[in-house]
Amino acid sequence: MLEQLKEEVFQANLELPKQGLIKYTWGNVSAVDREKGLFVIKPSGVSYENMKAADMVVCDLEGNVVEGELNPSSDTATHAVLYQKFPEIGGVVHTHSTWATIWAQAGLGVPAMGTTHADTFYGTIPCARFLTQAEIDRGYEQETGNLIVETFEEKGIDPLEIPGVLLHGHGPFTWGKTANDAVMNAVVLDEVCKMNFYARQLNQFAEELPQGILDKHYLRKHGKDAYYGQK
Amino acid sequence: MLEQLKEEVFQANLELPKQGLIKYTWGNVSAVDREKGLFVIKPSGVSYENMKAADMVVCDLEGNVVEGELNPSSDTATHAVLYQKFPEIGGVVHTHSTWATIWAQAGLGVPAMGTTHADTFYGTIPCARFLTQAEIDRGYEQETGNLIVETFEEKGIDPLEIPGVLLHGHGPFTWGKTANDAVMNAVVLDEVCKMNFYARQLNQFAEELPQGILDKHYLRKHGKDAYYGQK
Amino acid sequence: MLEQLKEEVFQANLELPKQGLIKYTWGNVSAVDREKGLFVIKPSGVSYENMKAADMVVCDLEGNVVEGELNPSSDTATHAVLYQKFPEIGGVVHTHSTWATIWAQAGLGVPAMGTTHADTFYGTIPCARFLTQAEIDRGYEQETGNLIVETFEEKGIDPLEIPGVLLHGHGPFTWGKTANDAVMNAVVLDEVCKMNFYARQLNQFAEELPQGILDKHYLRKHGKDAYYGQK
Amino acid sequence: MLEQLKEEVFQANLELPKQGLIKYTWGNVSAVDREKGLFVIKPSGVSYENMKAADMVVCDLEGNVVEGELNPSSDTATHAVLYQKFPEIGGVVHTHSTWATIWAQAGLGVPAMGTTHADTFYGTIPCARFLTQAEIDRGYEQETGNLIVETFEEKGIDPLEIPGVLLHGHGPFTWGKTANDAVMNAVVLDEVCKMNFYARQLNQFAEELPQGILDKHYLRKHGKDAYYGQK
Repeated sequence: MLEQLKEEVFQANLELPKQGLIKYTWGNVSAVDREKGLFVIKPSGVSYENMKAADMVVCDLEGNVVEGELNPSSDTATHAVLYQKFPEIGGVVHTHSTWATIWAQAGLGVPAMGTTHADTFYGTIPCARFLTQAEIDRGYEQETGNLIVETFEEKGIDPLEIPGVLLHGHGPFTWGKTANDAVMNAVVLDEVCKMNFYARQLNQFAEELPQGILDKHYLRKHGKDAYYGQK
Repeated sequence: MLEQLKEEVFQANLELPKQGLIKYTWGNVSAVDREKGLFVIKPSGVSYENMKAADMVVCDLEGNVVEGELNPSSDTATHAVLYQKFPEIGGVVHTHSTWATIWAQAGLGVPAMGTTHADTFYGTIPCARFLTQAEIDRGYEQETGNLIVETFEEKGIDPLEIPGVLLHGHGPFTWGKTANDAVMNAVVLDEVCKMNFYARQLNQFAEELPQGILDKHYLRKHGKDAYYGQK
Repeated sequence: MLEQLKEEVFQANLELPKQGLIKYTWGNVSAVDREKGLFVIKPSGVSYENMKAADMVVCDLEGNVVEGELNPSSDTATHAVLYQKFPEIGGVVHTHSTWATIWAQAGLGVPAMGTTHADTFYGTIPCARFLTQAEIDRGYEQETGNLIVETFEEKGIDPLEIPGVLLHGHGPFTWGKTANDAVMNAVVLDEVCKMNFYARQLNQFAEELPQGILDKHYLRKHGKDAYYGQK
Repeated sequence: MLEQLKEEVFQANLELPKQGLIKYTWGNVSAVDREKGLFVIKPSGVSYENMKAADMVVCDLEGNVVEGELNPSSDTATHAVLYQKFPEIGGVVHTHSTWATIWAQAGLGVPAMGTTHADTFYGTIPCARFLTQAEIDRGYEQETGNLIVETFEEKGIDPLEIPGVLLHGHGPFTWGKTANDAVMNAVVLDEVCKMNFYARQLNQFAEELPQGILDKHYLRKHGKDAYYGQK
């Protein structure tokens, strides 16, 4: 079932340690098959050295296991909510990557201070508040997903234009059209968190990128007249 | 004698440079056989490239060498005290890993500021005071062990819930159910020291994790109803 | 056409990830054949793992493609301006390398604070201002090139003595006699940005290098009586 | 001539990039044969990938080339002075390693803040002042050596107890009984520069190591009753 998607999800998970985003099993990648209404996700707490594509777990969009012998990632319910509420995304990544987690622990959104940011994220990447005790009691992982959606709705952010979020005290989630895009967005997020931290340390008055340059860089890669890359 | 434990301790020692926790021979791992009342530890100052499993040294819980041609780690007496006083632990690690040592040199305990911390350490990781001259004269390595135990007793900390400590001006010790667990805890400790340092630099008012999230993350991995990982 | 130069440019592009200067496809190297009035540049957005020397694109000094099936780097027009206006340079590199980008985001020129700097850059490396909206509208990449040239002319800097620049909010361009030299200058630039950041954090009164030492180090490698290296 | 020493010096030079202390050719290692009154040093500006043991250059203690087809390191005169004035050392290393260079650029000596420091350096590692214009004119490299010696004499430091120095605005020199020891000391120096920087950033009141712990750690490795390592 969904063998090709399992292979894609498996490879995308392997990319996390290769890109230096995780240690041990501190991350998870999933991808969705929109026609079937199912997504494939990494099993929980399995070492990357022993994991096989066949170990990936198939879930429905409520987060229920449909196929697989192993427990899915403990964050499965968060992925499920994102697939339900963000209908255009195809892949989701969660890590505790160092620099994104530092901003998450500081409880701060990440402003667009450079073109590295603007090439991928079209503005400030928001930081969602801590979950309340009531939310934790109701279902920590599902409510994490709901909080992400609420954060984007309240701020009027298009999840395709800002394909990632920080969770206060926790770490980042990113997404994209595919699992691979979501991983790439996780790499960019970590790097801009690093660059922005140091830019403000070097010059506490360092400005955000002017809107015209933000537009130019985002739109030359993602706009309808994009000219970056190959056709 | 204890060939399998020697192999485990040998492999766990090799993990230290692989995880970037040590340079040269600046670390040591041991593991205990509780039935026999003996522990196995790395020899002192032997390069990791030449070391073999058979070079591991067997000691009793007083720290006396029972088998082995090489001198055991100079920190053997500290390991011995920890095995005596913390009866549920199975492995001990000492490193001078960069970020944990930085906090040790700053003389500060490490607050729980994120879920990366809460997944492994159930609260603040304490920093033990400098040893006094009298303690140094009485036996530096043994008194280091005693000071760790004293620190946990005075603060009422369960060494299984907080499986690590910093020594002011020195560096970290961590422990766990096995040598491998102790190494993994050393990796987590170094990473949270890095994250917390930068989170407070980024936002000096960055808060500790709310108790409810600390509970949730620690207990979903370590509580009696843990659901992280595979059964 | 220009097969040897394509191979050189291809190898110089591969050097960027090897030296830790880029992630994914976030950089580009070109080199010029002055006799033919053509330069060779990396194609846009092609992964380094799949790229071949034959994929390199040949352009004239106006930035028009002369040979090649793929689109050239989206920054091609900037390279073209630099080859036109800096007639002694043979290679150009653009990256978003972490430390140079941090200074670029801070909008600050990089002072000569050490001999690592002085061995390659004979003084402060300038940071060019943000492009104006009019410039962006007129042609972002070409105007970026013009702005670099304007910056060097206004400050009276010889582009061979300071073979690099930062672009505010963006990142560095470097150049040199060959593509390889330009890469090496990109490595030095990133390293001195790192060193100078931390030197000023450590001691906010840290001085610039005295002129006599700056002269000595630059001239023993680059002056007419240079004695560094082999003849 | 001195084939074994050439091999040792060659291998010790290769260790510099392997330990992350240098990029390209930014470093040099030498070792002395005290009986013959000759030392062997890396050639100047030769890439590490092409270098062979036979390329090492033999010099007398005045720094004159005695054997070798390549130019010796441009820092040869500094090495020569150190071998003349510090008669007990056997090897010398110069690098621009990142963290030691940061302290050098800040113009600050490195206080003993932890046992990682105390295991190798018995107190503060001094930073020598900038060279004067008169010294530069008289002979930059030789006067660099003289300044190092002067710094140790004025402060009454034993070069075996503190086997390294920083040069303001430049970088570190280290030494030891052999070329390998000198490399190891360069690794320790860089690491303690990193740790001490961050410890003071974390806690600006972070203390130096108490004298009793400094003594204990230095002497258990280097004192006459040393018990670290194997006999």
